[in-house]
Amino acid sequence: MKKAVVLLSGGLDSTVTIAVAISAGLEVIPLTINYGQRHMRELRAAKEVVKFYNLENHVIIDLDLTVFKTSALTSPDFDVPEGTGDDLSGTMIPVTYVPSRNIIFLGIAAGLCESESAEKIFIGANSIDYSGYPDCRPEFLEAFQKTLEVGTKAGIEGRPLSIEAPLLYLTKADIVGLGKRLGAPLHLTWSCYKGGVKACGRCDSCLLRLRGFREAGYEDEIAYEVRS
Amino acid sequence: MKKAVVLLSGGLDSTVTIAVAISAGLEVIPLTINYGQRHMRELRAAKEVVKFYNLENHVIIDLDLTVFKTSALTSPDFDVPEGTGDDLSGTMIPVTYVPSRNIIFLGIAAGLCESESAEKIFIGANSIDYSGYPDCRPEFLEAFQKTLEVGTKAGIEGRPLSIEAPLLYLTKADIVGLGKRLGAPLHLTWSCYKGGVKACGRCDSCLLRLRGFREAGYEDEIAYEVRS
Repeated sequence: MKKAVVLLSGGLDSTVTIAVAISAGLEVIPLTINYGQRHMRELRAAKEVVKFYNLENHVIIDLDLTVFKTSALTSPDFDVPEGTGDDLSGTMIPVTYVPSRNIIFLGIAAGLCESESAEKIFIGANSIDYSGYPDCRPEFLEAFQKTLEVGTKAGIEGRPLSIEAPLLYLTKADIVGLGKRLGAPLHLTWSCYKGGVKACGRCDSCLLRLRGFREAGYEDEIAYEVRS
Repeated sequence: MKKAVVLLSGGLDSTVTIAVAISAGLEVIPLTINYGQRHMRELRAAKEVVKFYNLENHVIIDLDLTVFKTSALTSPDFDVPEGTGDDLSGTMIPVTYVPSRNIIFLGIAAGLCESESAEKIFIGANSIDYSGYPDCRPEFLEAFQKTLEVGTKAGIEGRPLSIEAPLLYLTKADIVGLGKRLGAPLHLTWSCYKGGVKACGRCDSCLLRLRGFREAGYEDEIAYEVRS
């Protein structure tokens, strides 16, 4: 059975991504980076998703990125902004951008792949209904793939790791529909940028998620403060 | 004054690299990743180098990579091998290879650059007298540079971060000579893969270092168990 490392934040996209990897018959190693994001709610969601799938090999790596002072997700100096609900895939990069996050996360995933003799890295990057982050785009993933080919032992020995981003060209509604078809535990996931008991329903991430469920024709079973 | 993040392990190469960056008139932010390497001796050296240069902005980030079980530098399951003294730049990758280490470190450095509005990342990668690591080669650095251009906010806004590897094509003797000319505190650095009170004098890293000093015509002032 081929092995794959799956980056799992505990959000909607990464949970559908792990469902895709499992349904493809791969032996999955879930990898969660605890990077000092504002709340631990997301980490709890990741653990619950891993438990749902009866996986016992969850790798959780602590990496304190709170030194990155410019992101609302790693610094207490910012409030998480409320979303506008429109033009979420525009060219302006929001304050929730964590510098180089996917470069760092894919790098750690690549190291774990090499260490575990896995062949694939799954990431829930999405270039359609996303928040404008540069490291969620196909150009980035292609460049990183090339980096793995020349910069890892596996690569120069002719067994390059491959990056799989099965959600890259899906809308949020597509992602919800795919997750539902695969039986992914969407009710356990957490997308809100804030860490309350209920999702806020106001930040970009909540707005994208709610719209995705609505357009897919499903109800989002998690609790919200407001449903816009 | 332009800013640069300098990856500083506390070894010979990264210390000469920070000397190069300082002598170029850059405002330097030293970045050390404490990644669970076998010993803290290297971290102490990094701190002493930073103190030597009177820098007060040393960023130390903890990242536990001991989950990478295949490297002698992160796993207690291996002994650090003794070097042979010849053919150190051959094609075989030694057990001291830490999977994807420079991808991860450069990713974190890139994030810090973006966060601090710095423009350059300095790394002491060397492709001549090195231990055969794939992530020390020019091909890797070029691919990573391309990744930064498309995968960071700075890159897509037309201010791509640049990776500077001033030692890339130098021999170890060249590096020693350059460090001496720049007044770098080579006596504070630590290269040995082991963490004893004295450097072992037997591992690949010690052998490379000792040969470099010998060929450059300088005495290595640190203490060794044996000097081969």
